[in-house]
Amino acid sequence: MSYRAPLDEMRFTLEEVAAVEGLKATGAFPDFSADLTVAILDEAAKLAENVLAPLNKVGDAEHCKLADDKVTTPTGFPEAYAQFVEGGWQGLQFSTDNGGMGLPRALGVTVLEMIQGSNLSFGLGPMLTYGAIEALIEHGTDEQKAMYLPKLITGEWSGTMNLTEPSAGSDVGALRTKAEPNPDGSWAISGQKIFITWGDHDCAENIIHLVLARTPGSPDGTKGISLFIVPKVLPDGSANSLKAIGLEHKLGIHGSPTCTMEYAGATGWLIGGENAGMRCMFTMMNSARLNVGVQGVGIAERAYQQALAYASDRKQGRAIDAEGPAPHAIIHHPDIKRTLSLMKAKIAAARAICVSCAVAADLAYHGDEDEEKAAAKRREELLTPIAKAWSTDVGVEVASANIQVHGGMGYIEETGAAQHLRDARITPIYEGTNAIQAIDLVGRKLSMADGAAFDELYADIDQTIESCLTSSHPDLPPLGERLRDSLEALQEAADWLAEADMKDRLAGATPFLTLAGETVGGWLLCVGAVSARRRQKENVGDPAFAAQRIALANFYAEAVMTLAPSRVDDITMGADMIDEVGFGL
Amino acid sequence: MSYRAPLDEMRFTLEEVAAVEGLKATGAFPDFSADLTVAILDEAAKLAENVLAPLNKVGDAEHCKLADDKVTTPTGFPEAYAQFVEGGWQGLQFSTDNGGMGLPRALGVTVLEMIQGSNLSFGLGPMLTYGAIEALIEHGTDEQKAMYLPKLITGEWSGTMNLTEPSAGSDVGALRTKAEPNPDGSWAISGQKIFITWGDHDCAENIIHLVLARTPGSPDGTKGISLFIVPKVLPDGSANSLKAIGLEHKLGIHGSPTCTMEYAGATGWLIGGENAGMRCMFTMMNSARLNVGVQGVGIAERAYQQALAYASDRKQGRAIDAEGPAPHAIIHHPDIKRTLSLMKAKIAAARAICVSCAVAADLAYHGDEDEEKAAAKRREELLTPIAKAWSTDVGVEVASANIQVHGGMGYIEETGAAQHLRDARITPIYEGTNAIQAIDLVGRKLSMADGAAFDELYADIDQTIESCLTSSHPDLPPLGERLRDSLEALQEAADWLAEADMKDRLAGATPFLTLAGETVGGWLLCVGAVSARRRQKENVGDPAFAAQRIALANFYAEAVMTLAPSRVDDITMGADMIDEVGFGL
Repeated sequence: MSYRAPLDEMRFTLEEVAAVEGLKATGAFPDFSADLTVAILDEAAKLAENVLAPLNKVGDAEHCKLADDKVTTPTGFPEAYAQFVEGGWQGLQFSTDNGGMGLPRALGVTVLEMIQGSNLSFGLGPMLTYGAIEALIEHGTDEQKAMYLPKLITGEWSGTMNLTEPSAGSDVGALRTKAEPNPDGSWAISGQKIFITWGDHDCAENIIHLVLARTPGSPDGTKGISLFIVPKVLPDGSANSLKAIGLEHKLGIHGSPTCTMEYAGATGWLIGGENAGMRCMFTMMNSARLNVGVQGVGIAERAYQQALAYASDRKQGRAIDAEGPAPHAIIHHPDIKRTLSLMKAKIAAARAICVSCAVAADLAYHGDEDEEKAAAKRREELLTPIAKAWSTDVGVEVASANIQVHGGMGYIEETGAAQHLRDARITPIYEGTNAIQAIDLVGRKLSMADGAAFDELYADIDQTIESCLTSSHPDLPPLGERLRDSLEALQEAADWLAEADMKDRLAGATPFLTLAGETVGGWLLCVGAVSARRRQKENVGDPAFAAQRIALANFYAEAVMTLAPSRVDDITMGADMIDEVGFGL
Repeated sequence: MSYRAPLDEMRFTLEEVAAVEGLKATGAFPDFSADLTVAILDEAAKLAENVLAPLNKVGDAEHCKLADDKVTTPTGFPEAYAQFVEGGWQGLQFSTDNGGMGLPRALGVTVLEMIQGSNLSFGLGPMLTYGAIEALIEHGTDEQKAMYLPKLITGEWSGTMNLTEPSAGSDVGALRTKAEPNPDGSWAISGQKIFITWGDHDCAENIIHLVLARTPGSPDGTKGISLFIVPKVLPDGSANSLKAIGLEHKLGIHGSPTCTMEYAGATGWLIGGENAGMRCMFTMMNSARLNVGVQGVGIAERAYQQALAYASDRKQGRAIDAEGPAPHAIIHHPDIKRTLSLMKAKIAAARAICVSCAVAADLAYHGDEDEEKAAAKRREELLTPIAKAWSTDVGVEVASANIQVHGGMGYIEETGAAQHLRDARITPIYEGTNAIQAIDLVGRKLSMADGAAFDELYADIDQTIESCLTSSHPDLPPLGERLRDSLEALQEAADWLAEADMKDRLAGATPFLTLAGETVGGWLLCVGAVSARRRQKENVGDPAFAAQRIALANFYAEAVMTLAPSRVDDITMGADMIDEVGFGL
């Protein structure tokens, strides 16, 4: 089997690390239960393992094709998409009022990890549709919701996000696409958009494009941007004046059509009010950022599974403590075992960050009291850039490590290891490059609510340190000490950045995000270790699994958390020292 | 221009960091002078920039082709190879007795960096020929030398290294190719070899394969391996019984033919004596390992240049302290500047390691006294695994960072950034994976000559620390302190490993190599800073360049050397902690 959903790890993360049960108290998820979770995850695993995973290589080899103004996805994609629609997977996390399953986003991202891990190119379609649905729920009129939500939530229609133009990438405010008012209240949209994921395809009946454009006389920059609903097929059944005019030739995700879209006076409808486009975009974007982080986890998990399978099978040399005659499987070589351990630990940490972010998002939306909701929102906002950037960095790192474990075979395309690296390499770039995430973290998030988001995080980490230090398990107190060192480093760096001028903040952004990811990931592995210890004492669950979760946290503490103090020097270097390097220009 | 040889950096590294002038005292290089160095580097730069670099994309797009038992290289490769031969570049570092230029290997690797940086696929051909030449010089009979060396040294004939078989990769001892004696003293070689770089091609008149095989009754494992010279065209002009039967479909280096070779009773001649194949192989291999490290430097340099050019050109957003109206070139954003600085600093460090290793190799071969030669040999052997593994890790890291600097454009194949990552990704794998290098370092090299190689390194680093601490330049004493911390960490880790049992050593091998690379690289940047300071005081050379070299060392000290102490925890974790992680198998 090319991909196997890591159900034990996923359930442990949901239940023991991210405390998903706490969502029941909100009353927003009446159907949600541990049993239902098991059933949902099992069904999703079947789709991912049996339907989507086998198409992953097909998509890579065939690419998408553009002919006669129409995009064709690779063999099997439309049929797989039909099964995705049939299972109702697109609507999992949306309320039953809108035709969804009414389940938590935390469960949604767990299912999403399977979809992305089994087939990143395929998974991009549904991922973009999520964003369109959320923008409509948040900003659409009742009429717009009634017209578009039902079929988007079933997945019969898909959605896109049209931001980027040749001169407007990270700087969205530079975009030039125009919207001119039509007499009937609709708008005529004209312009070219690039890098439009699933911009055209043959899987859904209609494609609902959400397009950023400028209305006449709008202010410059981001303040003058509006969002429009621009369907491929108009409500009267006629074709809108838009089409894909090009497909990008990319390093990876060949099964995902990345389109250049041309809007030639296409009919669109304003959503969220004139010049309110950035706010709407951030609704889509924030959801997409977490989801891209989940892509990082999914592809890392798949790459790890491939490395583990190969290392267990491939025999080379004499391993120092393997039994039986040589050659031994390379997994017995300590260096390979270290590599696999690092892959496993970072995946578990990244998954924990993403699921915790989703639980926070659920609480922020459905929480009981205003203060609880506000705190959850702060946590969601704090974790979102970390989830996006750190998890996708892990995705690339693990996919590259998988190639390395394979040796020469990893470099041969037929093995499939190379595809995972090629696919993963987009994730640190899109939905805001990882540098943009880091700047968001040291800019908006650090000072948000007078630093409350960080203070609350510190307090939670402190609790876990206390639990570790006072544990009767011999491994947990040393773990608590590593976590304390890591937390102190994070606080020291954050305090320095908060006082620093903006240029120094920006100069330290990327290593600070790395430190934050490593620390928060380590914290959540420690939360898992404390839970595993409790399970051991209460005789709950598989004792071997619990022991491995403690060992995983220990390993991570020595291999990763130990880096924290040294990162402070890097973060606090200051912009001047960088300026002096010069580039001989 | 797609690639520009970094002549200033190269000369500074040769002259001020690796002290190449010291080679004159050996008397082995009568023609070698600073003026000649300039002339040679200028000429090589023309070849690299004007001939090889423009073919880099061509090779990637066209791939090599196999038809009618013959391999065709991409358009322009044969003509470029002819120019390479005409310039006499293959013989640069070989003695004039053999028809070479009689120049130091240190100059050879500097030229090689240009060749690899401009076109890695092309550069692999000459790189393999170097190995064949060295094996012949070291182990061939006078007759063999007379027959093969002249045309290999001109490059009219090329060489290959045939080790790998499907079940014998890192474990060379598992190979099965057979050699049966012929009545005339030659041997009949039969077997299949995989991953044979430049195994067949249309650039040279003849291809001299060096093939590892087993003679009848030879011992098992590595002790029973012999090396054979197996030319494609036999001395009588007839075709030998060998051919390429397949070309690999790889992630990158598409312009380099990676062949499956079939030897069907091909005629070969024993070189170096029966069962002495491993010793001969290591002659080829050690040279190739340094050269692969140089590939890492070359491709990193090219990727850095592309990132720098793009960042200087691409305008996005308002940079915090840029002048003039927005949008500003992204190089003015502190995060981008940090990325470029890290790329530049690591390249300079890796280049310094490789060139220093080559100088040590020159001294080991040509040095005056036995003790000097022996010490130089130890230094060469110590630096070789670091040069190979650390530089290629840097190559991959920098190539990946180049994609990231490009944002979405980096993911589009037409940009060319993706190719550099795809090409670079092989370098940590071949000629002994980087894990094999790390194991070599903590195994053989750490205990070699009772630890003398490391002790000598420590002493040299100590001298540089002293120079920094006592400098009148305000930046140098803090630099000395960082270097001292880094050295202490290296010593602590090395001492622990030297005392540890073999399993723990192996478990800590990879992070130890990283620490060694970061520390040695940092040391050599400090050597450069001390030299730059001296130049400033003596008014020698460009003062801006000198200031930037000091700033580069400062930046590296804060961003990279600071990690050293924390790596000790990782290295000394011990194998048990890794064993406990378990993989749910």
